[in-house]
Amino acid sequence: MKGEIIAVGTELLLGDIVNTNAQFISQKCAFIGLNIYYHTSVGDNSSRLATVLHSSLSRSDVIIITGGLGPTKDDLTKEVVAKVLNKPLKLNWQWYKTINKIFSKRATIMPSNNIKQALIPKGAEILTNKNGTACGIYINSHGKHLFLLPGPPREMFPMFEDKVLPKLFELEENLGRIHSRVIKTYGIGESALVEKIDDIITNQTDPTICTLAKNDGIHVRITTNTDQDKITKTLSTVEMRLKEYVWGYDDDSVNQLIVKTLKDKKLSVSTVESCTGGAIASSLTDVPGSASVYTEGTVLYTEQSKANFLHCSLTEIPQGGIEEQLTIKLAKRAKEVFSTSIAFAITGALGPTAPKGVEVGTIFMAIVLDNKIVSKEFKFYGSRENIKEKAILAALHLIYKNLNEEPLDG
Amino acid sequence: MKGEIIAVGTELLLGDIVNTNAQFISQKCAFIGLNIYYHTSVGDNSSRLATVLHSSLSRSDVIIITGGLGPTKDDLTKEVVAKVLNKPLKLNWQWYKTINKIFSKRATIMPSNNIKQALIPKGAEILTNKNGTACGIYINSHGKHLFLLPGPPREMFPMFEDKVLPKLFELEENLGRIHSRVIKTYGIGESALVEKIDDIITNQTDPTICTLAKNDGIHVRITTNTDQDKITKTLSTVEMRLKEYVWGYDDDSVNQLIVKTLKDKKLSVSTVESCTGGAIASSLTDVPGSASVYTEGTVLYTEQSKANFLHCSLTEIPQGGIEEQLTIKLAKRAKEVFSTSIAFAITGALGPTAPKGVEVGTIFMAIVLDNKIVSKEFKFYGSRENIKEKAILAALHLIYKNLNEEPLDG
Repeated sequence: MKGEIIAVGTELLLGDIVNTNAQFISQKCAFIGLNIYYHTSVGDNSSRLATVLHSSLSRSDVIIITGGLGPTKDDLTKEVVAKVLNKPLKLNWQWYKTINKIFSKRATIMPSNNIKQALIPKGAEILTNKNGTACGIYINSHGKHLFLLPGPPREMFPMFEDKVLPKLFELEENLGRIHSRVIKTYGIGESALVEKIDDIITNQTDPTICTLAKNDGIHVRITTNTDQDKITKTLSTVEMRLKEYVWGYDDDSVNQLIVKTLKDKKLSVSTVESCTGGAIASSLTDVPGSASVYTEGTVLYTEQSKANFLHCSLTEIPQGGIEEQLTIKLAKRAKEVFSTSIAFAITGALGPTAPKGVEVGTIFMAIVLDNKIVSKEFKFYGSRENIKEKAILAALHLIYKNLNEEPLDG
Repeated sequence: MKGEIIAVGTELLLGDIVNTNAQFISQKCAFIGLNIYYHTSVGDNSSRLATVLHSSLSRSDVIIITGGLGPTKDDLTKEVVAKVLNKPLKLNWQWYKTINKIFSKRATIMPSNNIKQALIPKGAEILTNKNGTACGIYINSHGKHLFLLPGPPREMFPMFEDKVLPKLFELEENLGRIHSRVIKTYGIGESALVEKIDDIITNQTDPTICTLAKNDGIHVRITTNTDQDKITKTLSTVEMRLKEYVWGYDDDSVNQLIVKTLKDKKLSVSTVESCTGGAIASSLTDVPGSASVYTEGTVLYTEQSKANFLHCSLTEIPQGGIEEQLTIKLAKRAKEVFSTSIAFAITGALGPTAPKGVEVGTIFMAIVLDNKIVSKEFKFYGSRENIKEKAILAALHLIYKNLNEEPLDG
């Protein structure tokens, strides 16, 4: 089966949004072995969408269309698909009732133009939407499989996982034979990493290996469409070469690993944040069930607030409140007052300006554990936003690394 | 002139990268008034790229192609374009020398496959690349204007600004006259908003009006390519209709507006966060210079930590630590201990599970100001991540709204 993706929305052509839907769907399709040959974005324009749809129908078996299912006049995906496939739109009572329920839950009356969202092409199937009023639609037309999905990623992503993927497996029994593993690294650049495994990459046939520069470090992906066991050997070779940089696999995220390890070791953590302003606490508590290991934290954004926390006079705080010894003191104090097994503290200058004597991008971190104190200075470059992102990631990795070296609580 | 964008690269179709190039180019083109009607992504495949190119040539005047200009065999954009336009590739000595210079600067010998990067179609013009070895190429073929640009954004973005934009202005003297304003709303859905201004949207000719559903609410964009003054009248009409929902314009973000208003009114704010885990503090401190108005905050993620903060016994904390009166108490206590003019507190259940008696998505917020206490219950739907996002946004808007009603300090 050949697949392609069409995104509908003038906002894409104006550059107001980036087409993350196409990326998400492509990743999922690559993973199950459904080849995607084209992405197209087209505006909210009937005749241009119809033209695009005609050429997709002529060359692809699976056509996934995102966007244009909203309640406004601009939203015309269903109308154009209905016309091109000659399947008139009909009111679907089930979805009509669902939309009504959504509005009554919000204690508002359904605006009349939302009725449009309950119309679906004759013979089509509804794909329910847990996060909005636009249902997805599946149409089988002369052996061509069309999926119409809502544009907002927070509606589309779960719908694709829950409704589209199972349907694709139904349609084609050969799907799902791709096996893939990802090794996640941190602390090494892409070209340095490639140098370490260049011979393996050059000689690859099956499994194939590629490197991907991601926000949380460089990933190495090993893929086969034959025997899953082939991955295991390559994985351990790559792993051995990159040992000190490897922190996770596949869907791992470092905040989840921290929470899991804390739970496993029956430990708890608290945070003191200056420059990151609560973002590290926020990342840790993103993980469901984190309340059993993350108890509390504080954001100290001024010199005075740091002095108050340390019960010391303002004169004892170094100017700007950015310094290694101060950061250690903050972590020590946190371990005491928050009664956690581990306490983490961070101070630093994100820019665009910095206190006297401190360079933009200078970050200090400290971790206090039962049997040791670790502190580290970092130097990051880039915009305020970039430096903040890098500092959060470095903090999480520092916590995770030290956590792994900790014995069980006892 | 009609334009379109083609991205070449199998990595796009595998979802390894997202097509930020198309967004960047689209934004720039929208700004100068060059209409982009299609984005297409196609893999590193000669015949499919040729097909795409043929249909682009049949419908567009300006075709901007990104990617496929690298030194490897996979990179075939120039080869395909040369064949389709019947303009054979020739070595360009100027660029050949430039590439050589780049390699000698790196103190390495130019790999032989890089010679490929000095080949350009006969009659084409070079667009120099400050950040890499792939030159851009401009071709005028029977009145069709083709731009071939490198794929990496850090090479493509500056090349587009420095080389492509000036060329586009040369080609079409009517470009560059677009004026645009954005009104940002919060607290109203897109269809309810559209109902309020439906007549204006329906009767639009110049300026044009469109609505955009963004993460921070629904935006209304008003655009003209004639007289800038035409925007002003429509802007104030739209503004009047949406009055209670309008919070910002153009590049405004609500956290920046909060920090600015706090500064203007000489006020300060502190935060107590349970469910959002520090994300509200993090958003406020994202703003450069926020330290003068955001002093400190705390993340209380357990019942015990809330009891400690309130200096009360654990039995006084409602089960789960999610409740309106508790939230008010936390804000009151924060105003006291952090000595800020305003204190904000939030408790709630993000899911996937919730404490007994509390529904997932229930959020309580409280603000304590000098002369009043405001508290509010919210009910959000969606995943843990969605509910968190919505809660953060609602919190910022609640703070901003109440801040605007505050008199100057002193």
